[in-house]
This record gives sequence, C-alpha cells and structure tokens, in this order.
Amino acid sequence: MADNASLSAPALLEHSRARYTPALREAVGRLAAPMDTIAGYHFGWNDRYGCPTADDAGKAVRPALVLLSAQAAGGTDKIGIPGAVAVELVHNFSLLHDDIMDGDHTRRGRPTAWSVFGTAQAILVGDALLALAPQALLQATEGGSSPADTLRAIRQLTSSTCTLIEGQCQDLAFEKSDGISVAECLVMEGGKTGALLACACRIGAVLAGADDRISHALHRFGYHLGLAFQAVDDLLGIWGDPKLTGKARWGDLRRRKNSLPVCAALAGGSTASRRLSDLLTDPGSADDDEWQLAERATLIEAAGGRAYAEAEARRQHATALAALSEGHFSDRGEEQLTTLAAFLVNREK
Amino acid sequence: MADNASLSAPALLEHSRARYTPALREAVGRLAAPMDTIAGYHFGWNDRYGCPTADDAGKAVRPALVLLSAQAAGGTDKIGIPGAVAVELVHNFSLLHDDIMDGDHTRRGRPTAWSVFGTAQAILVGDALLALAPQALLQATEGGSSPADTLRAIRQLTSSTCTLIEGQCQDLAFEKSDGISVAECLVMEGGKTGALLACACRIGAVLAGADDRISHALHRFGYHLGLAFQAVDDLLGIWGDPKLTGKARWGDLRRRKNSLPVCAALAGGSTASRRLSDLLTDPGSADDDEWQLAERATLIEAAGGRAYAEAEARRQHATALAALSEGHFSDRGEEQLTTLAAFLVNREK
Repeated sequence: MADNASLSAPALLEHSRARYTPALREAVGRLAAPMDTIAGYHFGWNDRYGCPTADDAGKAVRPALVLLSAQAAGGTDKIGIPGAVAVELVHNFSLLHDDIMDGDHTRRGRPTAWSVFGTAQAILVGDALLALAPQALLQATEGGSSPADTLRAIRQLTSSTCTLIEGQCQDLAFEKSDGISVAECLVMEGGKTGALLACACRIGAVLAGADDRISHALHRFGYHLGLAFQAVDDLLGIWGDPKLTGKARWGDLRRRKNSLPVCAALAGGSTASRRLSDLLTDPGSADDDEWQLAERATLIEAAGGRAYAEAEARRQHATALAALSEGHFSDRGEEQLTTLAAFLVNREK
Repeated sequence: MADNASLSAPALLEHSRARYTPALREAVGRLAAPMDTIAGYHFGWNDRYGCPTADDAGKAVRPALVLLSAQAAGGTDKIGIPGAVAVELVHNFSLLHDDIMDGDHTRRGRPTAWSVFGTAQAILVGDALLALAPQALLQATEGGSSPADTLRAIRQLTSSTCTLIEGQCQDLAFEKSDGISVAECLVMEGGKTGALLACACRIGAVLAGADDRISHALHRFGYHLGLAFQAVDDLLGIWGDPKLTGKARWGDLRRRKNSLPVCAALAGGSTASRRLSDLLTDPGSADDDEWQLAERATLIEAAGGRAYAEAEARRQHATALAALSEGHFSDRGEEQLTTLAAFLVNREK
C-alpha cells in the first residue's frame, strides 16, 4: 500500500482484499472436498455446487486492519498478509459456528452454510478454518518475519481466539438470563468482538517486529474500535435495513438477545423499561409475531436504549482514537487507521 | 522417564499421565466459566456441577506416545510435555465435536458433554480446546525447544488437525453412502486416526530437535499404529463389551457406520455379504431393534469382516514396528514404543 495515502475506506478495503485474498484462497483451497466447496460457499466465492460466483464476501475489515497495522509499524503490507489471512480465518470460523448456535438462516443475503450443508458439515468446516489459522501464520517466516515474532503473533492469535470463544459462550448464557447489566454486556462484547479486532490491529505490527509500545497502542485502538463496532452492530440488529445488512429483520429481538440497547433500556428505570422487561420475561410473548417485535423495538428506543448505544459507539470510537494518537505513528499511518475506524462506526450494514 | 526402562504399558501410561496432567489442567483451567467446568467434566476431572471426581479420563495413549517420542530422540520427557498437552487437546476437541455429530450419548461410561450441557456449549468447548492446542506448544520454548523446532511442531500439529477433520468429514459422508471400498475406508481411517497418532509419535522428537530421518520413522510408526488402533476400535465398536468400552452396545451398527469390518464384509461377495447389503440398504430396517443389530453383527462375521479387520490390525501393527526399527533408536526407546503399541493393538477397551 505504498500509494494509498489518501484512499477512502471502501478503496482501502478493496485494496486490502486484492492483497490478501490469493493467500486466503490458497489456504482454504488446501482443504479436501467437500470442505473446500462449503468454505468457498461461506466466503461467497462459489455457490453450493462449487461454481464460481461473485457474492458478497463481507466487509473484510479485519484483514484491512492487519495490513494497515503492519504499515503503521513501518513494515510492508506483504509482511502482514499471513496475519490478515489468519485473523480472517478465525473470524469466519466464528461466523460459521455462531450461525449454528444462533439458528440464523441468513448471512450476507444468502442462506447460512449450516442451513445448506447441514450442521455437522458446518461444524467441521468451522473447525478446519480454526485449525488453518495458526498454520497461515507459519508462512510469516517466509514473508520476512523472524521466528520469535511469528511465535508472538501465534500467541496473540490463539489468546484472542480463546477470548472470542469465551465471549460467545457468555453471549449464549445471557440469552437465558434476565437483568444483564450494561457493564456485563460490555465485558461480553469486549470478548466477542473486541478481542479479535484488537488482535487484527496489533498482529501486523508484531509480524513487522514492532516494539511493545506500538503493539500495545494498536491493541487498545483495536479493542475500543471493536466495542464501537459491536455497538453499531447491535443497533443495526434492531433498526438496520435487512436489504443492507443481509440479515433477517429483527433477528436479535426474535432471539431476545441481551444486546447493548436492550441492556441499557432495561436499566433505565422508566415506565418503558418496565414494560419492556415484562414483555421480555413473558414466556407467552410470541417471538415470531412481527407486531410484538416492533413493539419491543419501540420500547427499547423509548427507554433510551438506542440513544445509549449510539453514545457508547461514539465514546468507544473516541477512546480508540486517543489510544492511536498515543502510539505516535506517522501521519499517514494514523490517517488510514482513522479513516477505516470512521467507516466502521458510521456504516449502515 | 529416566527409570522406566522395563515398565508395563499401564505403568507407562500412568507415568506419562502424572507428567503431563498438571500442564493440561493448567491450560484448560485458563478457560472462563462455565467452559472450564464443561471441559473438566469431559476430561473426567469433575462432575457436571464442578465437584472433583476420579472418573475415567480415557486411556490417554497419545500424550504417552509424545513423551516416549521425545525420549526416543534423546530428549527428556519434560521437553515433550507441551506436545503431549497439545495433542491431547486436539484429540479431545475431536471427541467433543464427534459425539455431537454422531449423536453419541455415552463416552467413558458417562453421558457425553453435549447431552449434559447442550450442543452449543459442547461446540464452544471443543472450539476452545482446539484453540488452546497451538498455544500449549508455545510453552515449548520455555522447556528448552528452539523457536524453529517449536514452529515445526506447530506446523505438524495444525496439519495433522486438518487431516483429522477431513477424515471425520469423510466418515460422515460414508454413513450416507453405499459401497465404500476397503481402500476408501482405510484412507478415511488414516485421516481420522492415523494423522494424529503419527503427530503424537513425531512431535516429541521434533521438540527435542530430532533430524528428519528420526522424525519420519516415528511418523510412519505412528501412522500405521493409528490404522491398527482404528481397526481394533472398529472391532470393539461391534463386538466389544460395553462394560469395558464405556460406549453404547452396537453404536456403530445402529448408525450403519461403514467401518472396516463392514466394508470388508460387503466386499466379500458371499451370500452373507449380499444379505448384509440388503439389510443395510433397506430403509425399513429398524436401527433400534436389538435383534436386527445382532443379525447384522452375525452377518458381518459370517462374511469375513471380523477376520479381515483382525488381520488388518496385525498387518498395520507389523508395518508400524518395521518403520520403528528403521529409525535405529536405542534399545530402550524402541522397547517402550513397542510395549505401548502392543498394548494398543491387544486392548479390550
């Protein structure tokens, strides 16, 4: 990315995609049939029969952050590619398994992998992507990273992966609980989303041999950006346009998910909060009734949940930028990461 | 294992268990609640409420092979411990996920984790063990392995893990297919069981800095030992005593699993082969009727499937020992691996 100083966020994402996709496809292409086809379907590279398509492959923000991270630490983006591939593999492992656990039928506007190929195959392909991730990092020594930095990168990847899995476990537990506090919700979201975004923002720099000061600043930037990203995700999960998000309308409400707007609304103490609580704890309340789901959305907004999550996204975004400025990166390095951060917080899908 | 030259196989297993279990428990203990409890339940360390127990934790042959592998290459068993932990984590990840896919309710004489804690939690705990495995290998640099050897070990672990997952994927596909040949079955079993046993037999030596000649000999030994082990497993899956195996009686027949005795029996061409084929392809044949399952077992034996699998176990065992002797290990190193191999092939559980 030598010539991308003033690129827009979509251009940065496109630029990064062109850089890491060949390595990602090579890693995934090593899987035996039918796992290569299932993985390719999930990534949007082929249809369910294995024929090439040009479906939506997702925003792929994490690999773009990895390449910018390598660059911010003075490395080339080539040195970041194994990190970009590894982080994207872990992210997609988690999507494949989460869709099974959450019973989601749609992702990126298409039927989810488990709903096309069955649960067992989708579990196995998720497992395979998870197993491929540290393997992808082993390529780093060929890209110019030292063995010691490669081992550091593997340590950060596996540790973030464990935290991500713990976050998903908490998320599932929260669906069965009442009275999750805003603080508990933020800890869960820090695990589920913050950990891997922090890893993405740091691992490129680590592969480029960055010192602890740089690596920690990028980690904090990524963690808070992850929390901002998740707050926006929670907002889109209730008020997003399904045509843009590619997900089913009101999926989070249907599952009575204790996302940030819901937790904040329930903690508000107003009449709307109490009415929402009654609705969500009523076992007779129908989760497949559009009218009732619309009522839940209205009550969450009336109880201040929407405003709280919007403010939280802004707060976390500001904290991320403050962490970034403490890293004293080059103007260009900071500018690019700032551009991408703004895009993630202001997105509509 | 400086003083275990003439130990019996059970004593070798016990010795190894005492060596690596603290490190395994430490790795698993890092998981957040409730995942630590679920993993501990699976390993037989605690009951479903988290209270300590002394349940059957499995044979744990793989970690014993890792420690013997380190020793055969001239290392201490301490240098093999991170490998033993990593391999045992991968093995148990696969058990957790396989039990879900196979719908097995019993393992080691206890209800399987998914049947106690639910599918989602069991998927996540399996994921966590898989993520912890390469992390465990990172400890190797503290145990005296070089960064380069640690990276080699991670490469072998992740590559074997992918092959194992591919083998399980083929195994599932075979359950829905008729006419799986003996050769196809052996390739599948080589992936599902051979790959990780080969890794176990090699990774200790790699961590101890072994050269390629030693590492390859141990790999071949482990691969063929794995095939012998799986042939015995297939035999126990039909004719084993549930009181000893800890698994449900005739589980493999109930699922119409195309295991080695079944594939060999179907390929036999006798009247019994044809009668078996008719039974297995009859959609009306009841998989929950003990009488019909007993008839399938009788036909598999009459068609030569039992004798074939017994002979195959002996063949693979002999090939494994031949590979071992090509490694020119010390008498003691070869003796210990030979003792353990004989135990695995002659076991009744």
